Amino acid sequence: MASVNPPRGMRDFLPADKARRERVLAVIRDRYRVHGFDEIETPVMEEFARLHAGIGGDNEKLAYNVLKRGLDAEAIRAAADDPAALADLGLRYDLTVPLARFYASHRAELPTVFRAVQIAPVWRAERPQKGRYRQFMQCDIDIIGDASSRAEAELIVATLDAVDALGLDGATVRVNDRRALDWMLTGFGFRDEERPGVLITIDKLDKVGPAGVVAELRERGATAEAVDALEAFLHRPTTLEHHPFGERQIRKLLPDGLPDAIVADLVGIGDAVAAARSLDSAEGGIPLVFDPFLVRGMGYYTGTIFELAHPSVDYSLGGGGRYDGMIGRFLGQDVPAVGFSIGFERIVELVTESDAAARSAVVLVHDRDVELGELLALKAALVAEGSRVRLEQRTKNLKALLEQSAADGFTAFATVAPGATRDELEIKPLS
Amino acid sequence: MASVNPPRGMRDFLPADKARRERVLAVIRDRYRVHGFDEIETPVMEEFARLHAGIGGDNEKLAYNVLKRGLDAEAIRAAADDPAALADLGLRYDLTVPLARFYASHRAELPTVFRAVQIAPVWRAERPQKGRYRQFMQCDIDIIGDASSRAEAELIVATLDAVDALGLDGATVRVNDRRALDWMLTGFGFRDEERPGVLITIDKLDKVGPAGVVAELRERGATAEAVDALEAFLHRPTTLEHHPFGERQIRKLLPDGLPDAIVADLVGIGDAVAAARSLDSAEGGIPLVFDPFLVRGMGYYTGTIFELAHPSVDYSLGGGGRYDGMIGRFLGQDVPAVGFSIGFERIVELVTESDAAARSAVVLVHDRDVELGELLALKAALVAEGSRVRLEQRTKNLKALLEQSAADGFTAFATVAPGATRDELEIKPLS
Repeated sequence: MASVNPPRGMRDFLPADKARRERVLAVIRDRYRVHGFDEIETPVMEEFARLHAGIGGDNEKLAYNVLKRGLDAEAIRAAADDPAALADLGLRYDLTVPLARFYASHRAELPTVFRAVQIAPVWRAERPQKGRYRQFMQCDIDIIGDASSRAEAELIVATLDAVDALGLDGATVRVNDRRALDWMLTGFGFRDEERPGVLITIDKLDKVGPAGVVAELRERGATAEAVDALEAFLHRPTTLEHHPFGERQIRKLLPDGLPDAIVADLVGIGDAVAAARSLDSAEGGIPLVFDPFLVRGMGYYTGTIFELAHPSVDYSLGGGGRYDGMIGRFLGQDVPAVGFSIGFERIVELVTESDAAARSAVVLVHDRDVELGELLALKAALVAEGSRVRLEQRTKNLKALLEQSAADGFTAFATVAPGATRDELEIKPLS
Repeated sequence: MASVNPPRGMRDFLPADKARRERVLAVIRDRYRVHGFDEIETPVMEEFARLHAGIGGDNEKLAYNVLKRGLDAEAIRAAADDPAALADLGLRYDLTVPLARFYASHRAELPTVFRAVQIAPVWRAERPQKGRYRQFMQCDIDIIGDASSRAEAELIVATLDAVDALGLDGATVRVNDRRALDWMLTGFGFRDEERPGVLITIDKLDKVGPAGVVAELRERGATAEAVDALEAFLHRPTTLEHHPFGERQIRKLLPDGLPDAIVADLVGIGDAVAAARSLDSAEGGIPLVFDPFLVRGMGYYTGTIFELAHPSVDYSLGGGGRYDGMIGRFLGQDVPAVGFSIGFERIVELVTESDAAARSAVVLVHDRDVELGELLALKAALVAEGSRVRLEQRTKNLKALLEQSAADGFTAFATVAPGATRDELEIKPLS
């Protein structure tokens, strides 16, 4: 007999948790809609070949693959040395691969600049551990067809607005640009072919510190002079951390000579975010932080990259970046694209707000001898008044019943006597 | 290269369709919540053994099975004669099996009478055809732990309220009771062991008519005298179709002698639904129709069964029934249960209402030379006023741009000149 628990690494949601998740999703959905993003949906399954085309990075290895139907013994034996032949579909491991496929399929029906929202679960067969699940929600916004930094600014403003609306004020976005990273690493002397590996190591800077990064690069046999140059740069004296986001800070945090075009894009994003929040960018307070060593894991990023941070936690609450090359792999024609994904499972743990739109929620406690028709008529009358209503047959321990009702989110109760009308109901608060 | 289309039998949803689906789901979710139902969620995957335990009926054969991870060549060869050994998980084909598993797992944390809502997709590998999809939404409400017909009445009232709230007034519920069917068929002389097969044939009455049912039963070799008795009954003279739902109608539509307990349950449901809708049950108008030959396919039903009908279509828009035996198969202890499932994919096609909560939706048309900061500040100002806002760079054909915006649901536009402030924006309606 199978277990009564959900499959390993996956979760059931009881009413209180489910209600909180739906409230948070409704706020995010509303904010993204107001900011001009359009929600779309794709099937949870994609073709196996689509999911294993090299775009998904390490996530491809974590995909759940769906068994082909109608396999006979011969076909199964033939697949012994090629397990991929057993599957023709798989569950998506992110929302970016399906979005690119969707856009390639429906481009003619979409606006020239397409602002997409996707709010949906994804699946990864990760080793279960605290806070990491095999089914989890992602909330992505993407702008396809806009090569300008207007796109980055709109994404960042919408995301910060959504996070604010959830009561998580004070969030900031760490920003970098892959082109700046490439320029800096090239300047240090790293060769083209070793840069992707160097980025993977630099991505660990927060965890292992400058010494750890340098040690790992030496161990990997990276160009010695380049590692020396990086090490010297990492240990340069700097007191600029707290300067406001802007050209001065960006240039000071990188070696001299960063190309003007990259600086202009970053500064433009900062100015636009400041304007959207009615801030004077010269005075500071812009919720952006330039981080010259922010890497983001995925190989497909081509420009700006960003991560969402909040003072209450030391981990990222989301992130994204520009991936101008990916759509072209589906469409055969390059289309610029940039996305920002909120880490819903982490956000929902931080949100403490109760049901803001709470309405009266009444428990009608009745004896067994009240007629069913009377009960349903009273319930219907209260529902028509806008209340949420639950019927409960009286138990010996009324106090325990009412306590449980309060724990379930009910705010008031009334006892129903046989023949009672709506006007005779005495509705009392549940304390 | 994989196709850019979604997998066969599955659908992408473009913004207008997705918005309509979410609006309909929000109405259903709100109505069920008000009626005292609590939403829960389970993972989309369940253990393979759970999905193939005989409860799912024909749907078990249609399940998508998920490939075990880490299979080596030897394990695959060993599975040649037992393909089930290749899968350890599967995608759910309904919401009832997961609900029973959920209840067995969490019973101690749930109210004694648990009113559950589930709004979620299910998957079946059916042969694709018009209106039938391999991924589709189900909206189920279930009441677990209440053996009385209060449960049926609450389900029917909540479902009719949800359908009304969607603007589909005039829906009715066809009602029958498996116990009445069993009693009638036994009375005709069908043997216990042939009754399940007879029910499958009777289920086709709408499609093949009385003569078709009788012919199929003869062909299957059902007890000849029993088929004769059924045939005579099917051809009895009756003019009672339009009588109101109630004891008289129920008794007239069945052979004499239907046990009082079954009649009382059915009449009680009718009275309760009438009371909830402020109808006098003697005067008629109750949105229930007694149908003595309603069968419902699933083998697990034990009492009342029902189907949702609407005058605009000749197919069912949902259905359900009592299944008192199923939870016990998970829990080892019988618990009464009854559920009602809305056929969301059919309902959503019928709903024509536009966005009732439509807010102002403004397109800001700007030239390339407007500063990004100014643009984002104007957008933020309109968002703060409660508008939905989309930025569009002016194109040569402004008329086409505005027409597309109107088609996308926007209601107004303004052109943005460099340096314009919110007060200077002239917002004009999009006709």
